[in-house]
Amino acid sequence: MAKINDNYLKLPGSYLFSTIGKRVREFSEKNPQLEIIRLGIGDVTQPLAPAVINALHSAVDEMGSAESFRGYAPDLGYDFLRNTISEKDFKARGCDISPDEIFVSDGAKSDCGNIQEIFSVDNKIAVCDPVYPVYVDSNVMAGRTGEYDQATERFKDVIYMTCTKENGFVPEIPTEVPDLIYLCFPNNPTGAVINKARLQEWVDYARKNGSIILYDAAYEAYITEDGIPHSIYECEGAKECAIEFRSFSKTAGFTGLRLGYTVVPKELEAGGEKLWPLWARRHGTKYNGAPYIVQRAGEAIYSEEGRAQVKEQIAYYQGNAKIITDGLKKAGFETYGGVNAPYIWMKTSDNMTSWEFFDYLLEKVNIVGTPGSGFGPSGEHYFRLTAFGSRENTLKAVERFAKL
Amino acid sequence: MAKINDNYLKLPGSYLFSTIGKRVREFSEKNPQLEIIRLGIGDVTQPLAPAVINALHSAVDEMGSAESFRGYAPDLGYDFLRNTISEKDFKARGCDISPDEIFVSDGAKSDCGNIQEIFSVDNKIAVCDPVYPVYVDSNVMAGRTGEYDQATERFKDVIYMTCTKENGFVPEIPTEVPDLIYLCFPNNPTGAVINKARLQEWVDYARKNGSIILYDAAYEAYITEDGIPHSIYECEGAKECAIEFRSFSKTAGFTGLRLGYTVVPKELEAGGEKLWPLWARRHGTKYNGAPYIVQRAGEAIYSEEGRAQVKEQIAYYQGNAKIITDGLKKAGFETYGGVNAPYIWMKTSDNMTSWEFFDYLLEKVNIVGTPGSGFGPSGEHYFRLTAFGSRENTLKAVERFAKL
Repeated sequence: MAKINDNYLKLPGSYLFSTIGKRVREFSEKNPQLEIIRLGIGDVTQPLAPAVINALHSAVDEMGSAESFRGYAPDLGYDFLRNTISEKDFKARGCDISPDEIFVSDGAKSDCGNIQEIFSVDNKIAVCDPVYPVYVDSNVMAGRTGEYDQATERFKDVIYMTCTKENGFVPEIPTEVPDLIYLCFPNNPTGAVINKARLQEWVDYARKNGSIILYDAAYEAYITEDGIPHSIYECEGAKECAIEFRSFSKTAGFTGLRLGYTVVPKELEAGGEKLWPLWARRHGTKYNGAPYIVQRAGEAIYSEEGRAQVKEQIAYYQGNAKIITDGLKKAGFETYGGVNAPYIWMKTSDNMTSWEFFDYLLEKVNIVGTPGSGFGPSGEHYFRLTAFGSRENTLKAVERFAKL
Repeated sequence: MAKINDNYLKLPGSYLFSTIGKRVREFSEKNPQLEIIRLGIGDVTQPLAPAVINALHSAVDEMGSAESFRGYAPDLGYDFLRNTISEKDFKARGCDISPDEIFVSDGAKSDCGNIQEIFSVDNKIAVCDPVYPVYVDSNVMAGRTGEYDQATERFKDVIYMTCTKENGFVPEIPTEVPDLIYLCFPNNPTGAVINKARLQEWVDYARKNGSIILYDAAYEAYITEDGIPHSIYECEGAKECAIEFRSFSKTAGFTGLRLGYTVVPKELEAGGEKLWPLWARRHGTKYNGAPYIVQRAGEAIYSEEGRAQVKEQIAYYQGNAKIITDGLKKAGFETYGGVNAPYIWMKTSDNMTSWEFFDYLLEKVNIVGTPGSGFGPSGEHYFRLTAFGSRENTLKAVERFAKL
């Protein structure tokens, strides 16, 4: 008789953003006259850049003619895109990442979720607390986390690295040595960044202990200050201990288009075994490539025209982040992030729990954000807002906060 | 210290189609003057239908304007597509499959590879021999197959159901009861089909034993004869024991566009646990939806215009299949399939092994096919050709075969 993978039953509740979506839908159905401002899920609102739209139209035309039609993409992505990424995202920053170390995919979420598969089930993971839920949930499903403990709101076999305002939301190196270390900078949800010296400490630590760092750099395009690494490969020796995830979602508004990539250096090993062939095998077996037209769209953001347009888009959202941060501070709230990241991490008022604050904001000022506790117990009494709304809604939201 | 998932090391060789690609590239580089005809990998060659191209252009335009821009798609797919699929692919055939039982994805390959995740590692799988490699390889990676035995060319803990010309390439019900049963009809690689009465026997068997059938119907659009089920849900009780995979790749030439879907009935259980919430959770955690523009393209093949165009495309490939079958028979070859399927399964000449025949065809007549043994030991001395070439190349290939 068939049996289920009962690790799935260890997952508490449903996926965070599905829960939020459901609550907002219910509120909205009961109050159809109210205008809700959504600063919850990290979804963009600006249209795709003209260079991207042009690239899409032209690739679609290619697909309509027998001479230029493209079927299955190469397993790991088209060379035109991998070459461009290697050149513009890495070599231009002094990182020696070659095109064949780049695996093009349908997004960083899939890759972050799937990467754990190539590692032993016995490996112990370390995650920040608070943390993007996908890292933990995908490991729960794989049976790598042990049971969920209701009292601590934590899985028993996971090393949680607490990120608080005291440590600037950058984790301390843990006492117990993890096998796999998930790091995300600029951070989701706190908007915190790590400087190069601190990241180098993590790289040195991982190399010394044979740990692998799974580095999520999905928000690197939002870095505005110097001295903050855009890639972990800016650190010496990182090719020996780190995999990096990148996304076009927030860099160029591809949330609905789906494109990302993962870097697995050729020399990277775990326990004496190379990881590149394993990830290549996974890609070749369980995936069939990102659509040709979407890979052409991705290439377009690296053209001179595309770069300028995408930069303007990012500046727009960075502007929103500043408006929110300034507005909240003025209204007396304690806020973090928002400078090198599209996320603003705020303290709830009057020591409300995150979900109490969620309901309070939804009911009082019709603003949707994400409860910090949804990212882990150390996120309790915090709340995440995103800079991805329209300028108009962002300004309105700040006005509404001022009235609270 | 991080360790790899050493189940990956049990996989013999590389993914079949990667190996073929490599061999052909090498031959082609050595013999640049030769014109190679590729009937190996199941990739289409005809351009996307005009209705699909129009839908893509119009969806791209929507993405270029703030008013109509779409970010993250709903987890399980857009309603416009799920409603259409439910209506046109199922209800029109008398199958009671509702829109929310349909999970839109980037293709049947991903879904066929990922589905095993929601089942226990202790479950025993049964596969046909020969078989599409993804079913087995994804289970090897998960640790569900035991070691590979060089002598038998089989994994120790897998139930192989031999498909030969004696049983019409439709497997007998195995003596040992499997937990998970992979079936694919019209079959890849043999092109065989199963009639409704035989499929009903499988459904009854699965229900009786609490087994789950994983039914790959990626090629159903190629069925030309009556009495052959297009969906397993045409069988009574299938909603209690079967998951079905569908693809737009061969139905509408979407190999480079990426779209498919999986049906998980709401009432389907394994060991008393519902499967729908597990697959929904997996989708929500490790996937972020198919691109909006591609979902609109998928919807377009169900319009009156789209249906007619896609039907014409399929008829074109069916015509190729007939040309190959007739040509090979005339040239004295033994062939199977090719009537309700885009695959022609031929015996090799002079009892050559499949790989000997691969080299023989490549060198003598510059035709690329797929060695039958790549699909399993019972595929030895067989060879797969596809009907997905251009008409011109298909005719040329038949001429070349006649000269052998």
